[in-house]
Amino acid sequence: MSLLQELVKDLARFPGVGKKSAQRMVYHLLRSDSVYVKRLGESIMTLQETIIPCSVCGAYSEDDPCEICSNPKRDSSVICVVEEPQDIQTILDSGAFSGMFHVLGGIISPMDGVKPEDLRISELVQRIRQGGVDEIIIATNPTEGGNTTALYLQHILKEFPVTLSRLASGIPVGGDLEYTNRTTLAHSFRGRITLDS
Amino acid sequence: MSLLQELVKDLARFPGVGKKSAQRMVYHLLRSDSVYVKRLGESIMTLQETIIPCSVCGAYSEDDPCEICSNPKRDSSVICVVEEPQDIQTILDSGAFSGMFHVLGGIISPMDGVKPEDLRISELVQRIRQGGVDEIIIATNPTEGGNTTALYLQHILKEFPVTLSRLASGIPVGGDLEYTNRTTLAHSFRGRITLDS
Repeated sequence: MSLLQELVKDLARFPGVGKKSAQRMVYHLLRSDSVYVKRLGESIMTLQETIIPCSVCGAYSEDDPCEICSNPKRDSSVICVVEEPQDIQTILDSGAFSGMFHVLGGIISPMDGVKPEDLRISELVQRIRQGGVDEIIIATNPTEGGNTTALYLQHILKEFPVTLSRLASGIPVGGDLEYTNRTTLAHSFRGRITLDS
Repeated sequence: MSLLQELVKDLARFPGVGKKSAQRMVYHLLRSDSVYVKRLGESIMTLQETIIPCSVCGAYSEDDPCEICSNPKRDSSVICVVEEPQDIQTILDSGAFSGMFHVLGGIISPMDGVKPEDLRISELVQRIRQGGVDEIIIATNPTEGGNTTALYLQHILKEFPVTLSRLASGIPVGGDLEYTNRTTLAHSFRGRITLDS
């Protein structure tokens, strides 16, 4: 196999990238300025040595503890529990949360052989035991697996003196009632908010 | 800017890749086996030194002349003229052509400031002058720019004793008359093929 074909094959392993896109990527690189291409190659080569999981929250970072866990301006009394490291950036971008995070590293899924022990749940319990935590916000996705995991966490954490909450499900802002599925709409009704009169 | 953010930004420069996809790519790399990630990084780093344009046809290759130009089993009397190097792989995959290729490196586009001199047209003329070429198949895309370029080539090459042809346009195989646009359908009528009776 030629270097070109090998690179196409390797790039096609990216999620959502097929053979055609991988080919276009290679031609993009061949035509791009060499400083950028070399920097990109080097970043990828050294990635796994430079970026490591934070020993506290499990997010990827250049430092341990990560810049979020070691930021004294963030509220360490609230921990938001997410499935994957990339969920943290999404929540940070929303600007709606100023507390800490905890990455589970997946969801409970008997079909895929993922048991509670495979997730970073004991690490979460340990953080709560160390004290100073008042609230746990469970931000797993509103999917079957995400809900199962949330229920499991609820069960495990009920013995601790912390407030447990779960992100609200409902009609997306800017969305349309007509195109909202039944389950989401049912959630919107159950979670309806009383307006001041 | 952290290494993680820099890598996301660099990956987002790929065609068709946005910030979200770039983030997913980085997390894919962080979780993948290190042999693959290191190989990918190294391939990208050394890409522009290893893969060079073939001095004959202009395709990217590890060798010069490339493996197509130096393959004695291919028919050197027919040259298929394409816009970009990646078009060659598409044509090879079709299995419909066993001749040689010539990469123009783009199309004539006054809007983008691409003049005929910016394309590899003089190199094509030189290949024809060297002799042994009987047919030139113009395989530029059936777009406005591709057609302009084809017309220009037709004008330039008419003084040479070579057969000029252009790839047929028409209803895609497996396509549907109902969903075929007017221009394509008009092409299908003009290019209709007489059946043996």
